[in-house]
Amino acid sequence: MRTGFGSSRSARADGSAAVSGPGSFGDRLSECVMRRESQIVLGLDPDPALLWPRALELVGGADVASAPPAVRAARAVEAHCALLIDAVAEQCVAVKPQLACFERLGAPGWSALVSVVRRAREAGLLVIADAKRGDIDRSARAYAQAFLGSTPSPFGAIAGLGADAMTVSPWLGQDSLVAFVEVARAAAAGLFVLVRNSNPGAGRLQDRELAGGSVSALVAGFVTELGSAAVGSSGLSDIGAVVGATAPDQLARLRKLMPHAVMLLPGVGPQGGRVADLAPAFGPGRAGGIIAASRAIADAHRLTRGDPATAARREAARLREAAWALSDLRASRLGA
Amino acid sequence: MRTGFGSSRSARADGSAAVSGPGSFGDRLSECVMRRESQIVLGLDPDPALLWPRALELVGGADVASAPPAVRAARAVEAHCALLIDAVAEQCVAVKPQLACFERLGAPGWSALVSVVRRAREAGLLVIADAKRGDIDRSARAYAQAFLGSTPSPFGAIAGLGADAMTVSPWLGQDSLVAFVEVARAAAAGLFVLVRNSNPGAGRLQDRELAGGSVSALVAGFVTELGSAAVGSSGLSDIGAVVGATAPDQLARLRKLMPHAVMLLPGVGPQGGRVADLAPAFGPGRAGGIIAASRAIADAHRLTRGDPATAARREAARLREAAWALSDLRASRLGA
Repeated sequence: MRTGFGSSRSARADGSAAVSGPGSFGDRLSECVMRRESQIVLGLDPDPALLWPRALELVGGADVASAPPAVRAARAVEAHCALLIDAVAEQCVAVKPQLACFERLGAPGWSALVSVVRRAREAGLLVIADAKRGDIDRSARAYAQAFLGSTPSPFGAIAGLGADAMTVSPWLGQDSLVAFVEVARAAAAGLFVLVRNSNPGAGRLQDRELAGGSVSALVAGFVTELGSAAVGSSGLSDIGAVVGATAPDQLARLRKLMPHAVMLLPGVGPQGGRVADLAPAFGPGRAGGIIAASRAIADAHRLTRGDPATAARREAARLREAAWALSDLRASRLGA
Repeated sequence: MRTGFGSSRSARADGSAAVSGPGSFGDRLSECVMRRESQIVLGLDPDPALLWPRALELVGGADVASAPPAVRAARAVEAHCALLIDAVAEQCVAVKPQLACFERLGAPGWSALVSVVRRAREAGLLVIADAKRGDIDRSARAYAQAFLGSTPSPFGAIAGLGADAMTVSPWLGQDSLVAFVEVARAAAAGLFVLVRNSNPGAGRLQDRELAGGSVSALVAGFVTELGSAAVGSSGLSDIGAVVGATAPDQLARLRKLMPHAVMLLPGVGPQGGRVADLAPAFGPGRAGGIIAASRAIADAHRLTRGDPATAARREAARLREAAWALSDLRASRLGA
């Protein structure tokens, strides 16, 4: 199922053991970045009220005209995401579906999500479920099963979404992340811990100073500790971190605290972040940073007033080239 | 749809305005607690591998024998939750479905969740979606639409789950909660912010001292500020807080910082929390604290070795009586 990514995933039945070496998430991601020459992550956060017109045309058929709004909207969302993936896959390394946008369509939304994940996978892209889940114990495990693993049942194993990675919240403390790590590692999947988010108010909590460092530095410590057992030959571990591109001053500081973490960088474009400020992310190599862009790509035509697919492709290409050049500079400077 | 709860819900189309007075969540909850004489919240975190035997029998029919595991498990989970609700509804004021346990069953799990919510509502119970969601901006709004509101689409409005409240994570900062507050308030629904969780490691982050107070005190400030616009005649606002019953020393401190917040108290039973330690929660009145119990109720028969429904009902009744007596003591002491 995940064989398109150039490295095997060795899961162990007991779910306990660390995966390192070529099958680990860090190495898988690294291989994909190098092969596709891109660090761009296509964010998928479809709003039924803002879909590409072509997506609405595609679901205009008589067979769904009498279906409930959720079913029709889910079909349109699925079509929109497929068009978007087809338009920009070549420029990207991964997709990042925002779970909220599918969940608000109920069961039909979940089915649409499954289709979108399949489409992304067929296009050779990794899938990062932007779930921002955080819970304890059995509930944390259940979320990890939902997105990365599978759930045992008397009726047989129930496959999860099969994402390659998911975002998780550290708010409940490091122990709340352990079940996520166990399930992820057994599946050779990865996690991205929300260390420093991109919204204006994130710093009001995450940048607060504690005795001995800020809250985000504390959480960066969680990431490094949890990832230390699975640093692959790429130098990257399976436990990454979300670090907003809107706080470049924090980036270098956090890179030092998390030398092996893949940084998933949101906030470029409408939120104000700039690719040029992201060099420290690439310290460990080209795959040390991956850049999430959703509105910047999907809504590019709203600025250029042209065909959405063409505008999206152009913007994705622009981002890709900027990041690739930046990471090259960084890599050559470091001799990596 | 929510008319069984003795108070009207006045939503405004623009989603902006505060709801206070008899329709606010605090007052609605207060009315339910007083009418049902219970502060017990039935946690629903069904594990397909640990369902009541009767639930498995109920889905043994030939019509589903050839269905995929997820469909069969979702049916069994739905039957289990229905049996559990029927057994203990009389002792409870609300149910708290753990979203992870439904999401891991995919689209069939989401359909089961919708049925379980309907069943709880028919039994006169409030519904608190234990989602622990936290996200920014449009994504936060999308989650709020999924659980508390509805989503506009070109095909018509898409109804959400219709929960009366949901749990939210403050990890992304106070601004990340604003969209949740807006949607919740427009629906006269409530939020429970994760202020101090019940797992052993929660304190490692949440109890950390900052200049001017702990991290959890900072977040308690978010709760009080966000709730100040909607304190009802009950003295309770629509912005509640999750405060673990496992840290009673924090409870009185946090109550002072959040005088109008309903405290949703997890951790009683297997996690070590005791009802007797929860008196400070009831400072603002009987509905000032509501106690979540899932395993303590659903797994009661594993200790007593009797019929699951009987054991569950007995444990729920025991918890209810202990909490009710404690809140009475508290209320009379305060002259409330």
